Amino acid sequence: MASGGSGSASVLTPQASDFPRWYQDVVAKAELADNGPVRGTMVIRPYGYAIWERMQAELDTRIKAVGARNAYFPLFIPESYLRKEAEHVEGFSPELAVVTHAGGKALEEPAVVRPTSETIINVYFAKWVQSHRDLPLLVNQWANVVRWELRTRLFLRTTEFLWQEGHTAHATRDEARDYALRILHDVYEDFAVRVLALPVVVGRKTERERFAGADTTYTIEGMMGDGKALQMGTSHELGQNFSRAFGISFQDANGASEFAWQTSWGVSTRLMGALIMGHGDDAGLRLPPRIAPVQAVVLVVREGEGVRERASTLVERLRAGGVRAELDDRVDIGFGRRAVEWEVKGVPVRIELGPRDVADEVATLVRRDRAGKDIVGLEGLAQTIPRLLEEVQAELLAQATVRRDVSTADAVDAEGAVEALASNGFVSVPWSAVRDQELALAADGFSVRCLQRADGSVPSSSDEEDLVAIVAKAY
Amino acid sequence: MASGGSGSASVLTPQASDFPRWYQDVVAKAELADNGPVRGTMVIRPYGYAIWERMQAELDTRIKAVGARNAYFPLFIPESYLRKEAEHVEGFSPELAVVTHAGGKALEEPAVVRPTSETIINVYFAKWVQSHRDLPLLVNQWANVVRWELRTRLFLRTTEFLWQEGHTAHATRDEARDYALRILHDVYEDFAVRVLALPVVVGRKTERERFAGADTTYTIEGMMGDGKALQMGTSHELGQNFSRAFGISFQDANGASEFAWQTSWGVSTRLMGALIMGHGDDAGLRLPPRIAPVQAVVLVVREGEGVRERASTLVERLRAGGVRAELDDRVDIGFGRRAVEWEVKGVPVRIELGPRDVADEVATLVRRDRAGKDIVGLEGLAQTIPRLLEEVQAELLAQATVRRDVSTADAVDAEGAVEALASNGFVSVPWSAVRDQELALAADGFSVRCLQRADGSVPSSSDEEDLVAIVAKAY
Repeated sequence: MASGGSGSASVLTPQASDFPRWYQDVVAKAELADNGPVRGTMVIRPYGYAIWERMQAELDTRIKAVGARNAYFPLFIPESYLRKEAEHVEGFSPELAVVTHAGGKALEEPAVVRPTSETIINVYFAKWVQSHRDLPLLVNQWANVVRWELRTRLFLRTTEFLWQEGHTAHATRDEARDYALRILHDVYEDFAVRVLALPVVVGRKTERERFAGADTTYTIEGMMGDGKALQMGTSHELGQNFSRAFGISFQDANGASEFAWQTSWGVSTRLMGALIMGHGDDAGLRLPPRIAPVQAVVLVVREGEGVRERASTLVERLRAGGVRAELDDRVDIGFGRRAVEWEVKGVPVRIELGPRDVADEVATLVRRDRAGKDIVGLEGLAQTIPRLLEEVQAELLAQATVRRDVSTADAVDAEGAVEALASNGFVSVPWSAVRDQELALAADGFSVRCLQRADGSVPSSSDEEDLVAIVAKAY
Repeated sequence: MASGGSGSASVLTPQASDFPRWYQDVVAKAELADNGPVRGTMVIRPYGYAIWERMQAELDTRIKAVGARNAYFPLFIPESYLRKEAEHVEGFSPELAVVTHAGGKALEEPAVVRPTSETIINVYFAKWVQSHRDLPLLVNQWANVVRWELRTRLFLRTTEFLWQEGHTAHATRDEARDYALRILHDVYEDFAVRVLALPVVVGRKTERERFAGADTTYTIEGMMGDGKALQMGTSHELGQNFSRAFGISFQDANGASEFAWQTSWGVSTRLMGALIMGHGDDAGLRLPPRIAPVQAVVLVVREGEGVRERASTLVERLRAGGVRAELDDRVDIGFGRRAVEWEVKGVPVRIELGPRDVADEVATLVRRDRAGKDIVGLEGLAQTIPRLLEEVQAELLAQATVRRDVSTADAVDAEGAVEALASNGFVSVPWSAVRDQELALAADGFSVRCLQRADGSVPSSSDEEDLVAIVAKAY
């Protein structure tokens, strides 16, 4: 991974010495988030939230492009709703936060703070769906959810987190399956690869790992800087499990009554963790330009004739060219300290401008994706930056892909997999060889992240022949 | 108000016979929202949420233009935080929802579901603010909040609602005041008038009506179709009340320690109620084009040679011209029923196209802001729609302004005010004459909505001379 430069070793714990502490340090020093006062909650600070807002915008555009419309369902769910789908309630009961008092009185029926909204949304789907003309019903919501996790870590696992959850109902199983896969590929995989520059592994969860209440769960898994897997998004085929439990039935074209086929799918603020650990280095965050709130920062090194003016003009030109640019002219703060700050914050391109540079009509250009500095001419500089940002975007994806590939090994059985995992992030092993070994793998701290066909495509059943299991330690 | 046309009397209760029921009918028939299962909560349906999303986008742009950055603070607040500011806790205690159990255990300290976030945000402001260089600190958040209200009505008063809440800290009282007023005028008033086409009355709350914990509350008040006032947004000067309670102090340029001066401000999904009741008529919603998710709908009246093709082409051209256009070619549903549906949903412009029209190269154009239909040529029609939408926008503002002005009377004292209110929505009365009568007015169901100077501007104190009180019944 590229080294950052400016003496940043003093700011962050090096990844190699303690990766979890490095992560904590980045979250704090880049001003992404703070711990909240109630156990496991988090405060997302403005810089962190600006990244999340960009994630939301990119995802929202893709979600709307596949036809879903946003809506909003209540935070509070009557306890009784949760009990309607057996596997679902079993999966979520231990994690529920419960409101027992409101307005100074005990509630007759306690209200659960939503851990996910399948149950409450399906009560309304049952009202709204009557005829095949009402299908497909494609709804998404952006919301906060609460799951009382025991071990929490900022962004990765918090008791409250932000997410989008999509919920759909279809007339046929095939249509539901197609939609779940469309979300997986056209929304989640496309976003992860093209925007976050993270080369995700896409596949199908084993029965052990699927969502509580789903028939099938599809997933995108990213490899983090320490080789561990992070589940970045899931898309579920719910079959008729919820439609039977909640009575979502429709009259088909022939007047017969049928239960709807459903999907649900979500990604969360956990993606912030993927971004941090998927690209970060010892100098801090490294943001792919498409997700960076600030793509280029122009630093006034120190006061001098015309420096501030030239820097301002450059920022204006960058903005006019569609670059999210910022001026840093806080010359009362040492230049080194400011350079480290932008480095920790992962800004893709830094342009440094001092009195000598202005006199010489040059600037110093620093790319966050690789080491070194370049002296470049000031004339026409702004116009070259958009293409440079595309280069940085491609370079970060290339680096992450190389890292993933170098750190993925093959094995022929569970024993070989565990051995290979000592020095690799992911191990690819025949599913038939580990199918009965999931518990044993779990005992060693590993899990099957997903199943793929030999060509890397997504299997339509875990019973297909010649499937490959991707095994890893996971967040 | 313009009559809608198509026999819609059968769909909605007329405003004149029962305004609250008309409101309920519109919310249901336009598919804006449903009641949630837990008392007072709501489900915002896709069409309603699409309007809210446009409100959010327009407000968010304005909020960012005045320098605030979005962030996210936890849903759960330790009960003890609420008690730190005396007036604040007194104002909110009766309305709190409390989580007492989580993860299967009783919590050591119960967590309150945020009714507003002053307390939790200010704990972090105290950490982040050290020096005058850290000021101003300008933060906004989009979030759900919960207040256990006894009498609820969709959008207007719900136990959970969505809103934005801004929180800022400044070095001086003047700067805080200027910022609170900037939010009032440049964000809230500008949005209400230019986007929602609602001619709000802008002023200062009396001490009786101000926010719990504020020194001063500024407000924008809209007049609804029944003459009642709706408080649409408030901006507060918090003085040093919270900074003293939470220890938000900074070193000024001379090294002296001072408490920060603060503001907070918010608007909520209540604005949906303002939009519905500020423009709606007996045929349903009437949406100003700038907020309408669908600005123009092209209806295929019935099947016929080239009709569907011409209609599709028209929709494409409208979209190419930046119009949010939709095609309705559901010819298996009666035309009348579909026309009423779009009318109830308040779509500003309807273009109807049948076989005869296509043969004659014409279409029927219906504007939602006024009665009547026009036969217009198909050639070049798409290009004329953007200007037509601006006309509709201006016309809705003009109609709402006339209604407000016609329904506002003058009075010289409290008795005269109450008398005038029998046949008027708002009454303007000298503040000196009703200053001691606020309780008496309340007994009659009225309140001072705000104080203004004689020229309509916002007073800097309620002790200024010659102030005017705007009195009304309020939602």
